[in-house]
Amino acid sequence: SGASNTAKEEPVADTTAARRIPAAELEAFISRALVAVGISKPEAKTIAELMVRADVNGSEGHGVFRLPQYIRRIKGGAVNVKPNIRVAREAAGMALVDGDNGMGHLVMRFATEKAIAKAQQAGVAWVGVKWSNHAGPAALYASMPLAHDMIGLYLAVGNANHLPPWGGLDMLLSTNPIAVAVPAGEEPPIVLDMATTVAAYGKVKTKAQRGEMMPVGWMMDRQGRPLTDPRRANDGFLLPIGGYKGYGLALVFGLLAGTLNGAAMGKEVVDFNADDTTPTNTGHVIVAISVEAFQPVAEFKKNVDTLIRDIRNSQRLPGVDRIRLPGEGSHAARADRLKNGIPLPAPLAASLNQLAADLKIAPL
Amino acid sequence: SGASNTAKEEPVADTTAARRIPAAELEAFISRALVAVGISKPEAKTIAELMVRADVNGSEGHGVFRLPQYIRRIKGGAVNVKPNIRVAREAAGMALVDGDNGMGHLVMRFATEKAIAKAQQAGVAWVGVKWSNHAGPAALYASMPLAHDMIGLYLAVGNANHLPPWGGLDMLLSTNPIAVAVPAGEEPPIVLDMATTVAAYGKVKTKAQRGEMMPVGWMMDRQGRPLTDPRRANDGFLLPIGGYKGYGLALVFGLLAGTLNGAAMGKEVVDFNADDTTPTNTGHVIVAISVEAFQPVAEFKKNVDTLIRDIRNSQRLPGVDRIRLPGEGSHAARADRLKNGIPLPAPLAASLNQLAADLKIAPL
Repeated sequence: SGASNTAKEEPVADTTAARRIPAAELEAFISRALVAVGISKPEAKTIAELMVRADVNGSEGHGVFRLPQYIRRIKGGAVNVKPNIRVAREAAGMALVDGDNGMGHLVMRFATEKAIAKAQQAGVAWVGVKWSNHAGPAALYASMPLAHDMIGLYLAVGNANHLPPWGGLDMLLSTNPIAVAVPAGEEPPIVLDMATTVAAYGKVKTKAQRGEMMPVGWMMDRQGRPLTDPRRANDGFLLPIGGYKGYGLALVFGLLAGTLNGAAMGKEVVDFNADDTTPTNTGHVIVAISVEAFQPVAEFKKNVDTLIRDIRNSQRLPGVDRIRLPGEGSHAARADRLKNGIPLPAPLAASLNQLAADLKIAPL
Repeated sequence: SGASNTAKEEPVADTTAARRIPAAELEAFISRALVAVGISKPEAKTIAELMVRADVNGSEGHGVFRLPQYIRRIKGGAVNVKPNIRVAREAAGMALVDGDNGMGHLVMRFATEKAIAKAQQAGVAWVGVKWSNHAGPAALYASMPLAHDMIGLYLAVGNANHLPPWGGLDMLLSTNPIAVAVPAGEEPPIVLDMATTVAAYGKVKTKAQRGEMMPVGWMMDRQGRPLTDPRRANDGFLLPIGGYKGYGLALVFGLLAGTLNGAAMGKEVVDFNADDTTPTNTGHVIVAISVEAFQPVAEFKKNVDTLIRDIRNSQRLPGVDRIRLPGEGSHAARADRLKNGIPLPAPLAASLNQLAADLKIAPL
């Protein structure tokens, strides 16, 4: 997984340049592709719905963009198309889900629904996951408890190591993300979704695609010098937020989402960009926290609204036009895309229609 | 609360310059002082033991250094010396503790013991806390579950706002810390304890005391320019790690530790450095996670040891002599200080003996 939808992102990208496609149409296309490689119709529909939700929320790097890679890995035998997703261990405040190497979206929907159901009884429920796969943006799962007046907290081990320990050169860590979603009243919910590196790897790829340079601070080369040319990304590595602090966060999030669940961590992490045949044993954590267990829901939401407004209306630094809350950009993208459709850049449309030809399904 | 014991810190400070004092002697002194202002003997002993543990672990800014401030606030009526610390709400996977405005150490020891006891049944237990006070370093509580083969996770709302929202000037947020402690086998546990700002405010104060300048990136002035003179700290504010990401973390940790528990957050936070009379209503969260609920403890510890060794023995950047794990510095400090005593700089010894004179108790 990776991270996006942070407070600083632009609300909507590519609105003018790209063709727009309605969410339902994109969903139907993804479903067709997944069914063509052996996934059952209802499960394909679930995956498609979650992938398109990522695009609707503005997480372009984690939606339909990933479809060719998913299909490649399914065809390579790296992902189980008929998984028996099940609870492997359980107690009142926790469960451990074994995803049986199924598509991450199916596994994480199962785990999140389990967490929500358990939190209705236990107040708070922590669900760990092993033998999963890439599941899209972290916010997708952290946000599911919101509809139940619950807070969601999500951690994961990323599916490629791009981060060495602080002071090191060996990429033993991924950009292990955290997402936290908090319900509000009249205001949109607060939804933080971030990698523990200054930039997620997807942003480096985007810079390379656009022929742009990266700012100093995103990456470092193997001599410890700033690396700003994204085409040289393989000569260096991402930098953690706050130096050794971000390294510490990536490490402990990985211990919680990976090691504790019996999922891959450190040297065991499979680079799913380079490898189409090896299961990743991806680990995640989803925690559902019922507000009602702590205080009346209406009171909590009023307090969150007040905090949001205090922050939004506070004094700004010279040159700053607006103070943002985490999730604001994603909220704006959702409003726009549900109405106007999802922007589909021409190269992506071409690659999806090439995929359609390969799979002998109707194109977009 | 604040944060320390990170991977980058020096293992031991002031070893040569300062007088060394045995932990037991310092504990007895703190107990005498607390009893003199109305705290019961057993509770004073508990607080003293935890404060000295902070010093032993190398968290100088959160140990006996805080005693004069604690006494001042107790004398000012800001802290309840006879609290009725109790569980206000409870379900299988959570509890909400009302600290009744008692000393934070008492409240957090109670809450952490509750979390551990509940996790023995529920696998994972999340305990929120309201009406607490400053409780020392975050790692103190995150580390308590280790003895029970549990992982500890701690969040708190800091007791003074030093952080504006990203792009803003109004200090609506504190350096809300996170600590996570993970048991290992033959290796020392991994103990991450960090503020969500690049530097904790205590480090700024230390720089000022030593007459040193701060590196660029610690603070910014109200025009958005780097602030490097710690004597001008009041003209600016701390910078969050990773820019808007650290702002997002401070915000969501504050929502979880403060707002959700009915504790102070945002504008409600009382600056306990400037105010000796107002209760802070400090909020914390402690989560205890039983390893055994997820997998055999021995297997987990073996995997953590392997990860630690893979990281420690990995290739280093030019000029780096050693790759550190979070908690290593603290571990080294503990070994040294239990043997050789706690360094007590002369100005601190003088202020403690002035306090002893004021309270009419035996000096150090």
